[in-house]
Amino acid sequence: MPSSRFVDRLIQRTADVGSPVCVGLDPVAGKLPDELRAKFGTDVEAVEAFCLGVIEASAEFAAAFKPQSACFERLGAPGFAAMGRVIAQARKLGVPVVLDAKRGDIGISATHYAEAVRALGADAVTVNAYLGPSTVMPYLEAGLGVFVLVRTSNPDSDEVQSQKLKSGETVAERMAGLVRTLGSSHVTPTGMSDAGAVIGLTKSADGARLRELMPEQVFLVPGYGAQGGGASDLKPLLSSNTELPGRGVLVNASRSVIYAPTQANESWQDAVARAARDMTSDLKSVL
Amino acid sequence: MPSSRFVDRLIQRTADVGSPVCVGLDPVAGKLPDELRAKFGTDVEAVEAFCLGVIEASAEFAAAFKPQSACFERLGAPGFAAMGRVIAQARKLGVPVVLDAKRGDIGISATHYAEAVRALGADAVTVNAYLGPSTVMPYLEAGLGVFVLVRTSNPDSDEVQSQKLKSGETVAERMAGLVRTLGSSHVTPTGMSDAGAVIGLTKSADGARLRELMPEQVFLVPGYGAQGGGASDLKPLLSSNTELPGRGVLVNASRSVIYAPTQANESWQDAVARAARDMTSDLKSVL
Repeated sequence: MPSSRFVDRLIQRTADVGSPVCVGLDPVAGKLPDELRAKFGTDVEAVEAFCLGVIEASAEFAAAFKPQSACFERLGAPGFAAMGRVIAQARKLGVPVVLDAKRGDIGISATHYAEAVRALGADAVTVNAYLGPSTVMPYLEAGLGVFVLVRTSNPDSDEVQSQKLKSGETVAERMAGLVRTLGSSHVTPTGMSDAGAVIGLTKSADGARLRELMPEQVFLVPGYGAQGGGASDLKPLLSSNTELPGRGVLVNASRSVIYAPTQANESWQDAVARAARDMTSDLKSVL
Repeated sequence: MPSSRFVDRLIQRTADVGSPVCVGLDPVAGKLPDELRAKFGTDVEAVEAFCLGVIEASAEFAAAFKPQSACFERLGAPGFAAMGRVIAQARKLGVPVVLDAKRGDIGISATHYAEAVRALGADAVTVNAYLGPSTVMPYLEAGLGVFVLVRTSNPDSDEVQSQKLKSGETVAERMAGLVRTLGSSHVTPTGMSDAGAVIGLTKSADGARLRELMPEQVFLVPGYGAQGGGASDLKPLLSSNTELPGRGVLVNASRSVIYAPTQANESWQDAVARAARDMTSDLKSVL
């Protein structure tokens, strides 16, 4: 029977598939394969069929799936319902789901969001803690994993996250300290916490210091592939525990996997599977 | 014909109703009037009927309505659909709608969220800019108003927002500077920008400095009523432009209005209307 703790399930799945590949589900109607666009009458049907097809093609390589809530919300209530069915299919195949919703509210509203995440069936959620610790705790108390935004991959994140405090630390380092403290009562026998952090691969220059500040956090790492980060950038982000499956990271690729260009005689799902397999090999080379 | 600019419509509505009262729609099934809970079979039906009843009772006093997205999302896709109908009813009565969703994502994901907010029919949205300026711009470019979280009313917001930077400013003051810069190309002839800021009434000690840093921002001010803030706390937050309807603030109350206790022979809607009227008088006394 799987552990009731998110981080345990994630690490077990990472061990099972042999790498920390996270496949990001960021479906956009205009970018779907022609055959799906031709087949379905509405964007929401095509988006759902696409996500189910990506899951089918890549589940054997996936330590996790990460649906981008915005892509479904823009399709209204039918999109919200489709997101629930996509999540259910991933979990049916035994793959943990991190809902990329970047929620950040406090008190009772955060409790409502935690309920919403649970109702959708996700295992974990990305959280923005600019409002403070009380944005994070309700998710942990509801039994969900969280990944708190600490150092993000977009160029202009420096405008806030790299600002130096009088204490000498940056705003991102301050956030890292908060995450470790909040997560300390949610550490499992793996040595890792249900409270993780988002650290962009393109910001790996800050990685060694952030890993030092957060030894118990799994890092959800966007920026691989289409956003320009490579496997070698991962090294500073890895846990010093060389026995830990995945070395404490979960590396996300969205566009470079789900929209992988087809080669001769490949179906679009073949291309997705090949891209996920190639990413697996690439990550294994540095772990 | 109403202006295409959010801040113009908000200021016009504030002038029309005579005060900057914002009624927060934070419906929770367990707190609804007994008669609604008895009448409807599902939480989502009761929640929708309640919100429509609150709108009917308080629209004549409301410069804006502010639905809390979490309360609807927790009810799943039917809740999401109900939120759209609630927003449509508010707008039909001529009241601008600020979606309290605290969204905070970048690039294409932020563009998707802006689409989602437009599809729901809201005029403006609350935004978390920890990820930097690119979290904010897509909403403005989509013609929406934004209220960026700068200084929030929860006690533990100090853990991030009050931290002192080497430059001498706090993190919140840094955020304030970003908001003014981002909003500077979206200022209308009113002198105010489509980019506003969220400033908690319980943090009004910081208010004078934040107003100095953001003369062109409308402040969405939570914390009135149930959260402990009173009208006198508003003074440091007001615009120096005494001709500006509402003096550059939009003051939100949720629980103290929508769950106002009934008095003898009052219906629950009478109690809502009375609470909104009392709040109007209270705010007028300091403007």
